[in-house]
Amino acid sequence: MRRRLSSVSTPARLASPGEGLGLDELALATRNHGLPLEAMRHDITPPGLHYVLTHYDIPYVDNATTWRLTVTGEVRRARSYSLAQLRAYAAATTRVTMECAGNGRALLSPRPVSQPWLVEAVGTAEWTGVPLRLLLEEAGLTPNAVDVVFTGADHGVERGVEQDYQRGLALDVAAADNPEVLVAYAMNGTPLPPQHGGPLRLVVPGWYGMAQVKWLREINVVDAPFDGFQQSVAYRVRHAPEEAGEPVTRIAPRALLIPPGFPDFMSRTRVVATGLVKLEGRAWSGRAPVALVEVSTDGGCSWQKTELEPDHGHRWAWRRWSYCWSATPGDHVLSARAQDMAGTTQPLEQHWNLGGFANNLVQRIPVLCADPS
Amino acid sequence: MRRRLSSVSTPARLASPGEGLGLDELALATRNHGLPLEAMRHDITPPGLHYVLTHYDIPYVDNATTWRLTVTGEVRRARSYSLAQLRAYAAATTRVTMECAGNGRALLSPRPVSQPWLVEAVGTAEWTGVPLRLLLEEAGLTPNAVDVVFTGADHGVERGVEQDYQRGLALDVAAADNPEVLVAYAMNGTPLPPQHGGPLRLVVPGWYGMAQVKWLREINVVDAPFDGFQQSVAYRVRHAPEEAGEPVTRIAPRALLIPPGFPDFMSRTRVVATGLVKLEGRAWSGRAPVALVEVSTDGGCSWQKTELEPDHGHRWAWRRWSYCWSATPGDHVLSARAQDMAGTTQPLEQHWNLGGFANNLVQRIPVLCADPS
Repeated sequence: MRRRLSSVSTPARLASPGEGLGLDELALATRNHGLPLEAMRHDITPPGLHYVLTHYDIPYVDNATTWRLTVTGEVRRARSYSLAQLRAYAAATTRVTMECAGNGRALLSPRPVSQPWLVEAVGTAEWTGVPLRLLLEEAGLTPNAVDVVFTGADHGVERGVEQDYQRGLALDVAAADNPEVLVAYAMNGTPLPPQHGGPLRLVVPGWYGMAQVKWLREINVVDAPFDGFQQSVAYRVRHAPEEAGEPVTRIAPRALLIPPGFPDFMSRTRVVATGLVKLEGRAWSGRAPVALVEVSTDGGCSWQKTELEPDHGHRWAWRRWSYCWSATPGDHVLSARAQDMAGTTQPLEQHWNLGGFANNLVQRIPVLCADPS
Repeated sequence: MRRRLSSVSTPARLASPGEGLGLDELALATRNHGLPLEAMRHDITPPGLHYVLTHYDIPYVDNATTWRLTVTGEVRRARSYSLAQLRAYAAATTRVTMECAGNGRALLSPRPVSQPWLVEAVGTAEWTGVPLRLLLEEAGLTPNAVDVVFTGADHGVERGVEQDYQRGLALDVAAADNPEVLVAYAMNGTPLPPQHGGPLRLVVPGWYGMAQVKWLREINVVDAPFDGFQQSVAYRVRHAPEEAGEPVTRIAPRALLIPPGFPDFMSRTRVVATGLVKLEGRAWSGRAPVALVEVSTDGGCSWQKTELEPDHGHRWAWRRWSYCWSATPGDHVLSARAQDMAGTTQPLEQHWNLGGFANNLVQRIPVLCADPS
């Protein structure tokens, strides 16, 4: 079966220069979806507008009352929880901005052939659940514990490897209390919808989406670094296929503009009127708090500091920023860039890698300021 | 300004043979989204999984209590309603399957360059609102009334024409009582989400999505057939640009399979085990009730009748069908096709038109039945 399965998987590849997107990339783009950028006006992304990426199918869960979450492996007391049992713990709620590790991939040159995001694979929600550290404390780790492995109910093939989706976290991340990792059963105050991992998922504040295991059914504490497919094959920053690469972890700083004015249907070019235009958007970083957001209205030649709102106690959520632009007739290119308190900022030239991961190239929005005559 | 606006709009065009999708098509595909086909297991599409197409931006509605819907034009008593006033009418609820008129466009050859749907631009919801006929009765039509024009708050440019999204319906459709057109304020029992037209939209059971005007703010009764952009330029079935073309109206019959087994991440090819596999899916038609659904497991050479569930009183919603397939090792292509009581069925060869509208070519799903050895 392994030999035959490899026949359904195409090898990893880069698009040729000028090669448009294929039906395989489109099949991913039509079923997954990004945040329409105008929806960044909402502090919390309305239901259905948060980005979604599922590797395989969305599992069909007919009856959430029969769902079980097991905690096994290097623990003193293996556990199995129903949803009702998890809901009986004191609930924690955290506002988190999530971003796909492949956000921006389709703008890279050459383009890694995979889910083709432009810049919209992001969203912000209030997640409610049980802190993972409480479940790990209750199970009691053995001295051999090294990594915690999370298994979802989503099942498929990738590069010839049949698998349930699995990711690991080092103990210091999994058991941390700031931020707390959540075993979440609610999104914005209601049960998780199917595409966001219902009935149960992991939420790891500050990390890219691949760590946020959905349809969570098993937590397994292991005695060696986890080397499953999604940890050691996928989600590595590599420049050549033979490299082991660096793991993809926390979200790099990014600022995005809400495209101003109104769009053309097909080109998505924006049109604004002459005069003052309030530019606004969001900025976030999973590595350190955002320190500064700048905008450019001349394609990146010059940069102006924006008004950056405080985080209002939501360290792991995006922050709003704004800038008042005096638009003059003609064509303009708008950009924004964030810098975080670790000093990391966004590049004007792509930082390319083979998988198209953790790429935070600055956004460019062409705008026509229409002549009032 | 008209001259300059034309510079943001690209002309309508067809992709060249073998031309992959461009960034303009991708920009539409990442912000709009289809129904992941496995979600057809749900009678009512869960929030966030129903297909969405917005021509321009999703309007930002800060405070729905200030929203007004006006009824004007060829009426005896012009009206302006708040949401609270509309909610005071006896509510009607209808379960409706909606489909984008461009569903299937990206599979056409040559491909019309526009929103690139494969087959997933569909969804089913329970819509609640006021029957339009009651509002028209209350306003009282003059003898000059011909068409009813609906205007949304979404604003943009298309082929050089700046516009609010507008569509018209003939009086006999707008004022009908079977099916009733709804001015809807709720979807699945909750206020309309932003991307589905919140706070108010039109629901025209059986019609393609272009008729379902979202962010509805004006109903204008006019004394001549409406010839706005979305009526007379877009949404016409044409074979040459100079033709006036036929209007796109009611949904052609279509059956879709829930892809069985599990997928490969990138190719989306399905894998099933040898033995009995329950094939199931949905079928619908806006023209007449579905009479028959057949499946083929050999790429369309032979067809078998499926078990078709009754409509359970929901004439305007999709119906479930199923078929038990005995899968044998090897490669297979699965298809389904619906026939409605008007005798219309789905073609095996594309019925091409310039805009890629109302195309109901049968779906083809490649499946590998893996050798159990």
